[in-house]
Amino acid sequence: MALPLANTRVAPAARDAAIAELKALLGDRLSTATAVCEQHGRDESYHAPSPPDAVAFAQTTDEVSAIVKICARHKLPVIPYAAGTSLEGHVAALSGGVTIDLMQMNKVLEVNAEDLDCRVEPGVTRKQLNEYLRDTGLFFPIDPGANASIGGMAATRASGTNAVRYGTMRENVLALTVVMADGRVIRTSKRARKSSAGYDLTRLFVGSEGTLGVITEITLRLYGIPAATSSAMCSFPTVKDAVDTVIQTIQSGIPIARIELADDVQMDAINKYSKLNQPVAPTLWLEFHGTEASVAEQAEMVQALAAEHGGANFSWTTNPEERKKLWQARHDAAYANKALRPGAQVWATDVCVPISRLAECIVETQKDIQKSFLPAPIVGHVGDGNFHLTLVLKPEDPKEVAEAERLNDRLVKRALAMDGTCTGEHGVGYGKLDFLIAEHGEAISVMRAIKQALDPDNIFNPGKIVRV
Amino acid sequence: MALPLANTRVAPAARDAAIAELKALLGDRLSTATAVCEQHGRDESYHAPSPPDAVAFAQTTDEVSAIVKICARHKLPVIPYAAGTSLEGHVAALSGGVTIDLMQMNKVLEVNAEDLDCRVEPGVTRKQLNEYLRDTGLFFPIDPGANASIGGMAATRASGTNAVRYGTMRENVLALTVVMADGRVIRTSKRARKSSAGYDLTRLFVGSEGTLGVITEITLRLYGIPAATSSAMCSFPTVKDAVDTVIQTIQSGIPIARIELADDVQMDAINKYSKLNQPVAPTLWLEFHGTEASVAEQAEMVQALAAEHGGANFSWTTNPEERKKLWQARHDAAYANKALRPGAQVWATDVCVPISRLAECIVETQKDIQKSFLPAPIVGHVGDGNFHLTLVLKPEDPKEVAEAERLNDRLVKRALAMDGTCTGEHGVGYGKLDFLIAEHGEAISVMRAIKQALDPDNIFNPGKIVRV
Repeated sequence: MALPLANTRVAPAARDAAIAELKALLGDRLSTATAVCEQHGRDESYHAPSPPDAVAFAQTTDEVSAIVKICARHKLPVIPYAAGTSLEGHVAALSGGVTIDLMQMNKVLEVNAEDLDCRVEPGVTRKQLNEYLRDTGLFFPIDPGANASIGGMAATRASGTNAVRYGTMRENVLALTVVMADGRVIRTSKRARKSSAGYDLTRLFVGSEGTLGVITEITLRLYGIPAATSSAMCSFPTVKDAVDTVIQTIQSGIPIARIELADDVQMDAINKYSKLNQPVAPTLWLEFHGTEASVAEQAEMVQALAAEHGGANFSWTTNPEERKKLWQARHDAAYANKALRPGAQVWATDVCVPISRLAECIVETQKDIQKSFLPAPIVGHVGDGNFHLTLVLKPEDPKEVAEAERLNDRLVKRALAMDGTCTGEHGVGYGKLDFLIAEHGEAISVMRAIKQALDPDNIFNPGKIVRV
Repeated sequence: MALPLANTRVAPAARDAAIAELKALLGDRLSTATAVCEQHGRDESYHAPSPPDAVAFAQTTDEVSAIVKICARHKLPVIPYAAGTSLEGHVAALSGGVTIDLMQMNKVLEVNAEDLDCRVEPGVTRKQLNEYLRDTGLFFPIDPGANASIGGMAATRASGTNAVRYGTMRENVLALTVVMADGRVIRTSKRARKSSAGYDLTRLFVGSEGTLGVITEITLRLYGIPAATSSAMCSFPTVKDAVDTVIQTIQSGIPIARIELADDVQMDAINKYSKLNQPVAPTLWLEFHGTEASVAEQAEMVQALAAEHGGANFSWTTNPEERKKLWQARHDAAYANKALRPGAQVWATDVCVPISRLAECIVETQKDIQKSFLPAPIVGHVGDGNFHLTLVLKPEDPKEVAEAERLNDRLVKRALAMDGTCTGEHGVGYGKLDFLIAEHGEAISVMRAIKQALDPDNIFNPGKIVRV
């Protein structure tokens, strides 16, 4: 997507004064090198990047506070940055300013095994955290695919394949330390599991994408690694059969840990890329967590439900090697899609609808795709009603970009009409500003009022979530 | 607790003009009768009541909007009211104004069985909702004890005995319709299970206690009624043994549905009131939801863990009659406490701490109680680290009230020092304003900024949560 117009930038003199002060504060950890700035203005999406004027590599909360105070005095934009794996242009410095790179704040600060929680710095990645936890018998379940940072995952309200059982970042962040627009440092909550003590600031900052404050510490919920895990795979005559199996599984109270869907186009792409011979048909991957007895029982119950809906070749296993192989096909989806057109990029849409409307939403979308010249497989976190249509396009071709925009536009409007959302887990960035207005109507004015109250000079990640 | 001083009231002329307009709008559904006003300024707590100037019985969202617009024009306070079961003076009209009684808005608007959700008006009570759902195979799990309204439960972020498995109102409200301070009506979210579409307004209004808007519709998550339920009861040598059993149960990933603790003082009170002969010792009640096989397995696993910690007389059953009898003792706790001193009232404290500190917090609190002249049994939602010390006192005796305040003050400070919260599930009202400041520090200023941004004239439930 092209950059939004009319970015106001601060006067060069103010910018240079702020950068000089930051240089005095940080020394070598303040960079204005073109390559560094360009790298920090770009995420993993097709959205046009926009470099900041400088990048500050912060190491402590106090340092972030000092950086924000300097920028606030000069009204220079501040953009938080960590792994850079966002998908809606979240880190593009639309009005220039200073990007705070938080990847040097990568310590696990404490693990409270009895309380099933931990406190980490924002630059800790999810893989790093789970490696750190390996010997404790605990794990952190949220898996958005990329090796994202915990700070970025909190800021975008990320989720992924385990959300059907364990929730999203919304349910799994217990407390945050946040630097506010005047440099004040707050902690949003105590470490208690639940609380009715005032406004839920934790949830306000989760998903705020750096527009209300800079997250510098995150307290997370953890879970015991299940005693047993079983995985299964099954193909279906139609998308509706697959979705109906999922609906009945969830209604039955089966505590399914993961349930993923791919359509026939996606399965074909996976077969070609991974040299497999799976049926080219709507397919579910499933995972069950529990005791040996309960994961067997869960798998058998779902096998029976699947059979009622024409589910074929239902195979389940607790063998780690076989489970890995089974899930590998799902993990290969992203690579398989890129391989469909050498040199092309992927544009992942992200709607989420009530599950009763999911099959209809997917089928309507497939009809659009059948009439389009762009290939576009579908994978979905079907237990949540969330799916990704992956448009495979050459971003340098305006005709392809226009077609992708048209298809995405139709998809989002379809999802909104079904009481769904324009983004289940990727966030708004600057890519979905207009869809957010279509989705929320009057409620956008409440979001804008909150933004203006907490960041009156609009220094935090301007041009994202709401226009002010 | 005595009423806070310095309540500013609007001038009588403005108040009378607003009431005249409301009378023209609502006719008989606007009351200024003393008895009606007094009833609406009082909740179920020991806090001093404060009647509004008038009570408006609203029937639709549009009517609530019209009422708010009239009050806003005259800057007259607006206090939402439903079942009146709050416990921290939430409904006291500290500055007079108009209480909106929402109990006539008591319709279940839709149930989406496939999506496991429903949409209700705020005056629907939790028992009413579960009766309505009975034939659908679904249920709504949040149970705060009282037959509270769903609107009030959302407004106070209520929870109760099932929260360890199903979460609190924070996790179970999907979307809200809210009337804002200028009468605008917003919907906070679409009905999708998850979303990354902007600021989490749903969670901001959940727990806002009527200070940011009036909730007029609530979309809730529902759950399939489990195929089987088993319940168990077990007594322990010490509180620490009981809590350690709980910690290991949760760490093991056993998806326990309820796990409640009573101390020896509480068990003695229950024995006397219910004519039982349970051991006068720390006691756990447990409940497991799942299949026949899994609830048996869960109960046996916890029985083994309990045995390692001296748990005696562990008995479990899936028989509905026996389960009811087993839980009756727990449900009798509130009545048993009132019966300890005829004519006395109960003051339920509500701290919640990380579970690793729970045993220590309870034992320290018991030491305080042993030195006090007030009886005070303890029951707790031990899986969440939340417990209620029930002070049984004569509220007309200033010495007893002062002692209760002293004990509560020590308890809250103890919990905060353990990284806990002053209120796990009751909320702030006007009873915990100062504790909120102690708990949140600088973050209170962020709450205040949000309040001022969304309700600049402070008409919504003034004097609650934050002072402005």
